[in-house]
Amino acid sequence: MLHDRLAEDLYAEICRIPLIDPHSHINPHKAASRSLDDILGYHYYTELAHSAGMEQTFLGPDADPRDRVRDIVRHMNRYDNTAQYQWFLEIARTFLGFEGERVTIGDCTWLCDQADKLMAQSDWEQQVLKKSNLEKVFLTNDFDDPLEGFDTAKYVPCLRTDDLVFHLDKPEVRQRLAKATGTDNPGTAIRKLFEHFVHKGARACAISLPPDFSPSIGKVKEGPHAIFWILAEHCREFKLPFDLMIGVNRNVYKKGVHQGRDLYDQRTSLIQYAELFNAFPEVTFPISVLSSPQNQELVSYSWIFPNVVPFGHWWYSNIPAFIAPDLRARLQAVPKVKQLGYYSDAYKLEFCLPKYNMYRRILAQTLAEDFVRPRVATESQAIQLARLLLRDNARRIFDA
Amino acid sequence: MLHDRLAEDLYAEICRIPLIDPHSHINPHKAASRSLDDILGYHYYTELAHSAGMEQTFLGPDADPRDRVRDIVRHMNRYDNTAQYQWFLEIARTFLGFEGERVTIGDCTWLCDQADKLMAQSDWEQQVLKKSNLEKVFLTNDFDDPLEGFDTAKYVPCLRTDDLVFHLDKPEVRQRLAKATGTDNPGTAIRKLFEHFVHKGARACAISLPPDFSPSIGKVKEGPHAIFWILAEHCREFKLPFDLMIGVNRNVYKKGVHQGRDLYDQRTSLIQYAELFNAFPEVTFPISVLSSPQNQELVSYSWIFPNVVPFGHWWYSNIPAFIAPDLRARLQAVPKVKQLGYYSDAYKLEFCLPKYNMYRRILAQTLAEDFVRPRVATESQAIQLARLLLRDNARRIFDA
Amino acid sequence: MLHDRLAEDLYAEICRIPLIDPHSHINPHKAASRSLDDILGYHYYTELAHSAGMEQTFLGPDADPRDRVRDIVRHMNRYDNTAQYQWFLEIARTFLGFEGERVTIGDCTWLCDQADKLMAQSDWEQQVLKKSNLEKVFLTNDFDDPLEGFDTAKYVPCLRTDDLVFHLDKPEVRQRLAKATGTDNPGTAIRKLFEHFVHKGARACAISLPPDFSPSIGKVKEGPHAIFWILAEHCREFKLPFDLMIGVNRNVYKKGVHQGRDLYDQRTSLIQYAELFNAFPEVTFPISVLSSPQNQELVSYSWIFPNVVPFGHWWYSNIPAFIAPDLRARLQAVPKVKQLGYYSDAYKLEFCLPKYNMYRRILAQTLAEDFVRPRVATESQAIQLARLLLRDNARRIFDA
Repeated sequence: MLHDRLAEDLYAEICRIPLIDPHSHINPHKAASRSLDDILGYHYYTELAHSAGMEQTFLGPDADPRDRVRDIVRHMNRYDNTAQYQWFLEIARTFLGFEGERVTIGDCTWLCDQADKLMAQSDWEQQVLKKSNLEKVFLTNDFDDPLEGFDTAKYVPCLRTDDLVFHLDKPEVRQRLAKATGTDNPGTAIRKLFEHFVHKGARACAISLPPDFSPSIGKVKEGPHAIFWILAEHCREFKLPFDLMIGVNRNVYKKGVHQGRDLYDQRTSLIQYAELFNAFPEVTFPISVLSSPQNQELVSYSWIFPNVVPFGHWWYSNIPAFIAPDLRARLQAVPKVKQLGYYSDAYKLEFCLPKYNMYRRILAQTLAEDFVRPRVATESQAIQLARLLLRDNARRIFDA
Repeated sequence: MLHDRLAEDLYAEICRIPLIDPHSHINPHKAASRSLDDILGYHYYTELAHSAGMEQTFLGPDADPRDRVRDIVRHMNRYDNTAQYQWFLEIARTFLGFEGERVTIGDCTWLCDQADKLMAQSDWEQQVLKKSNLEKVFLTNDFDDPLEGFDTAKYVPCLRTDDLVFHLDKPEVRQRLAKATGTDNPGTAIRKLFEHFVHKGARACAISLPPDFSPSIGKVKEGPHAIFWILAEHCREFKLPFDLMIGVNRNVYKKGVHQGRDLYDQRTSLIQYAELFNAFPEVTFPISVLSSPQNQELVSYSWIFPNVVPFGHWWYSNIPAFIAPDLRARLQAVPKVKQLGYYSDAYKLEFCLPKYNMYRRILAQTLAEDFVRPRVATESQAIQLARLLLRDNARRIFDA
Repeated sequence: MLHDRLAEDLYAEICRIPLIDPHSHINPHKAASRSLDDILGYHYYTELAHSAGMEQTFLGPDADPRDRVRDIVRHMNRYDNTAQYQWFLEIARTFLGFEGERVTIGDCTWLCDQADKLMAQSDWEQQVLKKSNLEKVFLTNDFDDPLEGFDTAKYVPCLRTDDLVFHLDKPEVRQRLAKATGTDNPGTAIRKLFEHFVHKGARACAISLPPDFSPSIGKVKEGPHAIFWILAEHCREFKLPFDLMIGVNRNVYKKGVHQGRDLYDQRTSLIQYAELFNAFPEVTFPISVLSSPQNQELVSYSWIFPNVVPFGHWWYSNIPAFIAPDLRARLQAVPKVKQLGYYSDAYKLEFCLPKYNMYRRILAQTLAEDFVRPRVATESQAIQLARLLLRDNARRIFDA
């Protein structure tokens, strides 16, 4: 898909680097898809189809999965310009043997049948991991996840803490916490969670935060800010990086599809986190942001703060039009050993390949234009740089 | 002006698509220019010349038009680097037969004479429409415009509502409203306006909004927020899209030239409109913004909300340096059927051609680089995509 | 370093233009470096090395300079991807005769020795000025600088006023002011400073401002806002441009290296300065900003306000990834006679060359792509445009 010989060569070499995917929503018990519905049920497709006019009729849990798939595919000719459609096309070609130029409603039955047949193979998950060159995939685990029954060296646990920080006032969350830890005391409970997660091989604590969140010590004694600060203290003690995914407003489009209701407010700044970064020099904060102006701040903060590192290209900013300028800036101004290049954010393994390929193409093109052609680096040095972004930095920063 | 063969070919094809221009300030009774003063009196030229040092001596209504033109041209060698100068050069070449490389003060008399001669032709307006491949042009009509004496199928009325929302406390606006509708009751009056406009073929309601505006139901019972909400209700009832032009601060440079006093504050967010978008799922909101960070939000909101669509490249963001990245992002993330690519915002017909050509060149280059070369689309599919942006989406969304 | 023949040719021509560097922190008594420590002690290197893991052990005033240099170089393989590393490499090659591809710890002693030897030459400063094609360099002088003992035609004084505006409540600043002016009255003292500076050939007044600063007349009678307004009045009276460097938060990373503790908050707007720009039409305000969204505002404000001019590419935005789009926008929308293209911001003369070369390469590439290839300008006209940005506008605007 690249039309530049040097970039093509770099891309081919970059694809040989085994990936550490440092953030996903993979369920390790059902990592790979079982049907085309697992693929097209991803919120990107339901969102785009709904935004382009699809009713939500077939999106409920009781609808027939093939009806749902058919309806999403039927609307593809309204959004086949998007990067997300390209991901699907690459999945269809790479994993399902699709050979057409476009996916149309006429391909739907064949694709469903093909998916049912291929994904039923006992080694499908292994095939996908191998084709995708994935070595490790980080998870996003609820705090009460027992973390059992899967290979935690391959699927690396990560403690997701949104519920603890923002929903601890809800009885059901309190009950889940008490059940998971055997105590009603939040402080004691949180310590037990960290002990449990670290014991099970967790390599990060993570949270997503609204644009107006501004952590500060002593601001309050309880509530989100207090819990957040306690989590940072535990990250320090348990030597876990604390992934901050900054800027999301939840439930903005109230009648949107599942997972398709959140948006952002560009009026946010990393200055809101300055007190945190100062207070915890021992904690590494991999930071994800949602827009290019925030990325520009992130580049500056990562350049100055030793414990701030840029982390992937998140959600609404995860399209080439934003990745390309955001990546270019990071490569020019942030020490190379601090850059966590990309993560899949995937719910199903099959999405790692097209998403990483999108990133790898942009990375190859950027390395060609900014490093190899102007003789800032040799091809070999450029590949070493890519290796840091795709693998070595994640291994070192997360001790994975 | 393009130096890429594929982009040139695409550009040539794109130019064949008859245009629906969904937003302008054309006066349908004097759509085309009558003199060079009609061209160079456009605020872009008075602004740039004044900003570059021109006194306002010749800008008053009593000044001789040729003196004004001469002074604006005399300063062109201070701003002939700008996109706006390129528009003028293209007008001079295409419509006035100018064959020079640069416009200098020495060309002024010839250009004025040529304009006087050519624009006096009885079919000048038709010549301009034909050369520009314009099929329909949307207007911006004051609420008390009788909408008579012109072809509303070609010049499509649009109800501009800034006065109603922001100036209804002024006696003269109240009087105009009473005179136009025969009633003193604002609610009744607004209904009559919609009836009148829809009866006359209006296809949109439109308003420009300051950066801090945040519409909300029940917030207030009267004043701008209440009237705005009532307008949205009428858009729903009368099935009119509601064009929101978000972010302009009026009268920032108080001694600026006419129409050259407004600027913006980047600190605004579409989250301010979330309640509106949720409350009116039946109303389509074509959204114009003034900066690339706002465009990035717009891309995300258009991707999620079915009733939010990106609308052209407005005012200060209407130069290639901003159009190119803004367009690229829209093309990669917003369903293609939702994109209203461009509008002229012109006051005189002659400006549609150079403005649209600027946009078409960027569109052609983007389609070449992001779609055709990486084999995401064939040339024919790329042209179909362009047709949606330049014509078909406007026809469908505005029922025009 | 360019891989485009036309851009290379333009670059070569642009390099012939003698430079007026309108903002630096050069000490005219020690303008050039005396050792490699003078080069690598620049905060960019201590920041990046520290951010990439270097301890501050050798950064204190008592540490051995060679130990410091060695430690900074030893960490280069962690940040040799950055634009700042490229500046150093260009200095090593151009001024020190380094011929390697990469600077490693093995080169350290040789580079130190070479620097000690070459920089000890009595005409070193003149060599650097000549190789850099520097005609004049603006300084940043404390208000109590006697401005004596150097050639003020070559090293142009500039009154830096941060201390006056933001620290006049500190006894030591009051004492310095009283000592410098012989009066305790701030109003009288400020007048004396202006008289002194203008008498000594000062050509600008300058200040850096936090993101939330919003000057306004009558807002307060004393404190930062009042002093700031008084400074603007003196700029008007003494006909000095007032350089505003907008957006920096001081001491954000409290344990950072010297000069490496400041960051920014993207949530700022030039609308905060509208009252100032309106109140002082006779004063030119060269404006520096820290981010691309602010640059987009700056482009619009410079297009409208005659007294607002874009000024260089400041600090965190001074890398190619941000310069390129920021420059492109300015070239397309701001009258060419108003653009102050670049300044070095350097503390030592040797940095002017690599920083200006970085800018000149981007300028050459932009002129090639946006002006010469699309036939908007001839090569000769493009060079004339570059000359305005690099020399003529600074001479005219600062009367230098």
